[in-house]
Amino acid sequence: MTSLTLFTPAGALAKAENLKRAARRLGQLGFDVTVDADALARHQRFAGDDATRLAALHRVADAAPSVALATRGGYGMTRLLDQIDWDRVARSIEHGTRWVGYSDLTALQNGLIARKKGLSMWAGPLACDDFGRSEADGGVDEVTRDCFLEAMSGALEAVGFRAPTAEFDGLEVRGRLWGGNLTVLCSLLGTPHWPKVKGGVLFLEDINEHPYRVERMLLQLQQAGVIDAQAAVLLGDFSGAAKSPLDRGYGIKDAVGALRSRTRTPVLTGLPFGHIRTKVCLPVGATVEMFVQGREAILGWQSDARLAHHHAHDHDHAHH
Amino acid sequence: MTSLTLFTPAGALAKAENLKRAARRLGQLGFDVTVDADALARHQRFAGDDATRLAALHRVADAAPSVALATRGGYGMTRLLDQIDWDRVARSIEHGTRWVGYSDLTALQNGLIARKKGLSMWAGPLACDDFGRSEADGGVDEVTRDCFLEAMSGALEAVGFRAPTAEFDGLEVRGRLWGGNLTVLCSLLGTPHWPKVKGGVLFLEDINEHPYRVERMLLQLQQAGVIDAQAAVLLGDFSGAAKSPLDRGYGIKDAVGALRSRTRTPVLTGLPFGHIRTKVCLPVGATVEMFVQGREAILGWQSDARLAHHHAHDHDHAHH
Repeated sequence: MTSLTLFTPAGALAKAENLKRAARRLGQLGFDVTVDADALARHQRFAGDDATRLAALHRVADAAPSVALATRGGYGMTRLLDQIDWDRVARSIEHGTRWVGYSDLTALQNGLIARKKGLSMWAGPLACDDFGRSEADGGVDEVTRDCFLEAMSGALEAVGFRAPTAEFDGLEVRGRLWGGNLTVLCSLLGTPHWPKVKGGVLFLEDINEHPYRVERMLLQLQQAGVIDAQAAVLLGDFSGAAKSPLDRGYGIKDAVGALRSRTRTPVLTGLPFGHIRTKVCLPVGATVEMFVQGREAILGWQSDARLAHHHAHDHDHAHH
Repeated sequence: MTSLTLFTPAGALAKAENLKRAARRLGQLGFDVTVDADALARHQRFAGDDATRLAALHRVADAAPSVALATRGGYGMTRLLDQIDWDRVARSIEHGTRWVGYSDLTALQNGLIARKKGLSMWAGPLACDDFGRSEADGGVDEVTRDCFLEAMSGALEAVGFRAPTAEFDGLEVRGRLWGGNLTVLCSLLGTPHWPKVKGGVLFLEDINEHPYRVERMLLQLQQAGVIDAQAAVLLGDFSGAAKSPLDRGYGIKDAVGALRSRTRTPVLTGLPFGHIRTKVCLPVGATVEMFVQGREAILGWQSDARLAHHHAHDHDHAHH
């Protein structure tokens, strides 16, 4: 059985119920589930004070389960970044741990890339948000679940999505996948936790941010030289913000347009990722290839299974 | 009479009424008021498209009135930063123009510091927000008005404020004053518009940002080495954000505490500046001195009057 640990690195859980439900469902999906001792800890809005949450993170790293799945995001990771023992985290990944989450976990995932080349974590579901909802609240999204299961088995090697137009027909790019939540990512700019990725594939999503705020952050990345240095930018979901009568038609399309008018880097939309029910799993830090045919985009990478095959192959050669 | 031009560099004005009222009141205060031709322009949420607003900015710079007062903030300055002719703006200041505003104007004020040492603009009121309110909506704040009049006359050479405690009693610092709106300032990090001020006095304010978001930005500045490099940090108003039951007591004091625990730079609170009725005028880019006695802080600088006196004095010496 695949070991899976649930831990809470940032915001406190409002109630234990969703965590219990997520643990039960993940158990039914075949995981041997462990709930970290401080998964329900509380200190103000945080899941325990900084020392508590840092200790939990290191404890999970040392235990090196097959899957380290965060229960929720919120805010709290950037408080810990300066103190994380990245070698311990890296060792867990080398031992096979797949770290999974999104939103505030963007800080952990990109902080890792800033230091450890060639290692990756998974942008994917959060236990309470994606596996903890009651049936009345929508239950578990099947696509999210199936993609997660495939990724955690090591077999997932590509995800596909449909762009709104065929304008990027024929596009082929290759580079390191990085990014995640736009606000959290931008909060790393200028710090030692910023991954200086060139020629990468940058994916971005956000929630409850007005299009003008999304645009301001996208323009910051462009003015900082980040966008122009990428092979491609993939935009996921940017919903949830209340419109204002002052907008007079200005919306997320205009924010994307403002970015596109300032860069030659292809900026694709439609990536099924973000604070939405249906989300894919993406290997943050891994080298990916993207092909677009018409409106269909395929984002692929070497799965663990394929890597294992290659290693075996190399081994054969070594003995010839 | 002192010439004063009203212009709209970012967000569109919702209605002409507040602009007319501000122009009338500023006239009554003794200014010879000109309203820029595009002060009421509209393009989506902006006061005209980027070319229109950029042209307005350059037109005001070329006209070089005594006072160039923005009508409102909103969002839009960072769209223009790459295209501003900073030499034209600098020439207007050398000719005596005092540029005034806050909020989105933070981008203009700090973008200037990034390029032109020794020049300053004024963090101070916005025409519609501070001089355009109907009497029913509160009218004009007397302190804001009087401080503005003194600053625009060239006589203002200090502002005082009371800190909540006497913990900084005896503090004396000297450095370049910079900063403004926290979100707007952070949106310059990593770009060519970021002023790399060392040993400065950094002032910050924001509105409608939850304390955890304020904290995330403060920690970003700290992690980027910005806070530690300053002589002092002065915090203005940070109100307007809705509290959440998830906060469990966490608030702006905790955000400030999180910053203080990570830096030896004095972080003072209580600066009367921000998106509030009563606000002082501050010379962004100028060298300031701050003295604290008990809870009373005095932030002073060389006024134009004093500078003029010094110049005259130098001149006398030259003839001895």
